[in-house]
Amino acid sequence: MQTPDWIAVDWGTSNMRAWAMSASGSVLAAARSDQGMGDLTPDQFEPALRAATNGWVIDDIPIIACGMVGARQGWLEAQYAVVPCPVTPDDFTQPSSTLDVHIIAGLMQTNPADVMRGEETQIAGFLSMNKNWDGVICLPGTHTKWVHVSADEVVSFQTYMTGDLFAAIGGHTVLRHSVQSDNWDSDAFDVGVNDAISRPERIAARLFSLRAEGLVNNMQNGTARASLSGLLIGAELAGAKPYWLGQQIAVIGAGNLTSLYVRALALQSAPATQVKGDAITLAGLTAAYRRLKG
Amino acid sequence: MQTPDWIAVDWGTSNMRAWAMSASGSVLAAARSDQGMGDLTPDQFEPALRAATNGWVIDDIPIIACGMVGARQGWLEAQYAVVPCPVTPDDFTQPSSTLDVHIIAGLMQTNPADVMRGEETQIAGFLSMNKNWDGVICLPGTHTKWVHVSADEVVSFQTYMTGDLFAAIGGHTVLRHSVQSDNWDSDAFDVGVNDAISRPERIAARLFSLRAEGLVNNMQNGTARASLSGLLIGAELAGAKPYWLGQQIAVIGAGNLTSLYVRALALQSAPATQVKGDAITLAGLTAAYRRLKG
Repeated sequence: MQTPDWIAVDWGTSNMRAWAMSASGSVLAAARSDQGMGDLTPDQFEPALRAATNGWVIDDIPIIACGMVGARQGWLEAQYAVVPCPVTPDDFTQPSSTLDVHIIAGLMQTNPADVMRGEETQIAGFLSMNKNWDGVICLPGTHTKWVHVSADEVVSFQTYMTGDLFAAIGGHTVLRHSVQSDNWDSDAFDVGVNDAISRPERIAARLFSLRAEGLVNNMQNGTARASLSGLLIGAELAGAKPYWLGQQIAVIGAGNLTSLYVRALALQSAPATQVKGDAITLAGLTAAYRRLKG
Repeated sequence: MQTPDWIAVDWGTSNMRAWAMSASGSVLAAARSDQGMGDLTPDQFEPALRAATNGWVIDDIPIIACGMVGARQGWLEAQYAVVPCPVTPDDFTQPSSTLDVHIIAGLMQTNPADVMRGEETQIAGFLSMNKNWDGVICLPGTHTKWVHVSADEVVSFQTYMTGDLFAAIGGHTVLRHSVQSDNWDSDAFDVGVNDAISRPERIAARLFSLRAEGLVNNMQNGTARASLSGLLIGAELAGAKPYWLGQQIAVIGAGNLTSLYVRALALQSAPATQVKGDAITLAGLTAAYRRLKG
């Protein structure tokens, strides 16, 4: 392998991905590790990176990292940038004598209080590939972000803990008996979305009804699972309506969850562009490297 | 101890309480056990009852039981009664040659699908002490019930899994870092209730804001905990408004949770009567015994 000009790192709570990069932005090699920020103490990040990238040259070249690696409990704390602001690397620090680590700052909003770490790099990557793009970016996940972008700045954002709720409700309430399934009922998803958007106040009752429908009317688990997802995503769309209504929308993320958001938005006659998340993160890290060098 | 005329049993998912009763309704002795329906197979209920009531005469006298003991996975399945209906014992069965067990039927509603087991006995107890009472009964708990009662019948009911959600969200989402506390902020509870009632669609965003307020503005855990409770109960009141608006309201249950519901209703200018749950359950079992004998 040719000696990389820099290293790109996406280091989240539960895993890490790294890319050896050329100055022109080509990927020379890729690596990954299950040692996420949640499993590591500050002094364990450097050995974990060396182990995962075994054989790469990583000393004395820029390492550009994003994600929870910059949290207070991470490798080095990267202070939040306060919106409205553009997305830039923040912390230029040297955790050892030979590593040149730059962690991209997360974003903070003071009122209403909100935070993100990692998504700002996806936003920067999307903007680097879509010049002069104004609109709303949705990043589905455990904590889904809705982000208003204008003139290459993040103007405001709002987090919905929809994925976190889905896992907690599906795994740790009475619905755990009702929603474990590999099946999926798309019609039930659509009904759930529309129900929750039109009557968001009914959610807590509709949730228990998924259990009761199983007992009383033999509703299948695949239907209940899709209903739960639809209700929670629909409730999110109801709340986030001031963000997406009448706006250009991009939904950035991986696989099936992103498709569900696009489908749910389409049900509200709100067309959204679906964007693959992986390449976008690397584009954001690359944009940060260029700002650093430029 | 004088020989009881009958035995009252409240057997739920996680524990069991029993009372040795005289025909006139006096309590001769009380017993309890942590062996709930969730821990027992059908053939283990009789030994569990004998162990908990060690020394009582329980053979050849009526045993009136309510709760999950009558579920499909319980001691003996008591079929649901379908609302609208009055509350009566349903299953007159003999699990052994000497025990005379009568389990009170739970209630089922087919559309919208809903079920209850145990609360129907509290409703019957309340009605036995409040003749000709019409109105709405709220029974707060893991699965809070709102019940429309008229002419001594349950007309309809609706379940909100608010307590289940509080436990799952507080224990199994990112908010577990924010809401563990012995402190309580009543003002934050009130704000949460009013927020959720006036803007129920904002709930999923407000939930994450409890985490963000801690990171950004140093919100204390006692405030976040009370806010979470207020938001969830407020969302429930928003959904249950067709039940309670303009109605006579009784809130039946134990301790602090019941007080929170009464407080939240008062914030909506809906005065509610608070009723202690324990005596009510026994009154319901006593009413069932009298119907059995009468």
